[in-house]
Amino acid sequence: MTRQSETFLEDFTPGQIFRSERFVMTIEAIKAFAREYDPQPFHLDEEAARDSLFEGLAASGWHTAAVTMKLLTTSPFRPAGGHVGGRLEELRWPLPTRPGDELRVESEILEVRASESRHGYGWLRVRTTTFNQADEIVQTYVGNVIVRARGA
Amino acid sequence: MTRQSETFLEDFTPGQIFRSERFVMTIEAIKAFAREYDPQPFHLDEEAARDSLFEGLAASGWHTAAVTMKLLTTSPFRPAGGHVGGRLEELRWPLPTRPGDELRVESEILEVRASESRHGYGWLRVRTTTFNQADEIVQTYVGNVIVRARGA
Repeated sequence: MTRQSETFLEDFTPGQIFRSERFVMTIEAIKAFAREYDPQPFHLDEEAARDSLFEGLAASGWHTAAVTMKLLTTSPFRPAGGHVGGRLEELRWPLPTRPGDELRVESEILEVRASESRHGYGWLRVRTTTFNQADEIVQTYVGNVIVRARGA
Repeated sequence: MTRQSETFLEDFTPGQIFRSERFVMTIEAIKAFAREYDPQPFHLDEEAARDSLFEGLAASGWHTAAVTMKLLTTSPFRPAGGHVGGRLEELRWPLPTRPGDELRVESEILEVRASESRHGYGWLRVRTTTFNQADEIVQTYVGNVIVRARGA
């Protein structure tokens, strides 16, 4: 893993896309997350999952979200000051994450603007999309991330 | 913990509010989640957190979201078929979750409608709000949850 240096407000431009590494969702990790945070049968048990809306074992959407965050923290998308999100405009899980899926994340900069209330900071509006190994979208949201300006 | 029976589409009404039990966010749990999913200094280290935007150690927003899900799974809000969310319209973290915070969740039914595409199912539009022990909002979202109709 290469640690990139942080990127400041002035160096972001709409249209930039940052791509993360990949992470495999094992069946053990899916069940472990579910036991702790989302112990519903379709996240825990193959048999029960077959008869659910998911038609097979599926990761909790919040597990997909947590792994997306994990991938962001080592991605070349490194807003100065860290990944601090104020508000997600929409969060969708178009497809479930399945055991063995290999996830990766793309961050697309949609808007860049200076903060009106906090001197030396600005906001990035970012679409964060999580793909599986077939390049299908398993999660997508538009977030607003605070970022330090240069020399602030 | 009392297991309530499931509630079907026909038995939900806009304005209903369901309240969860409470869960304490320990400093150990905050750091353990951060190590695995969101290893940024302000979620891991008190010293580094003091100099960050959070001005002190704060839980990852995704940890607050995961614990909200945990509280929902034992809450009296039990949509028939499970908690299966299609789309969150907005997700905000107005305040950080701090070590020692005691969280609880309220689910308010905003809308109830039959599904046009899937016979025997319907949708609940639900505001899910997570409070700390001072009744301050640490997380809020509006979600759309699929629910079975009676006899489907």
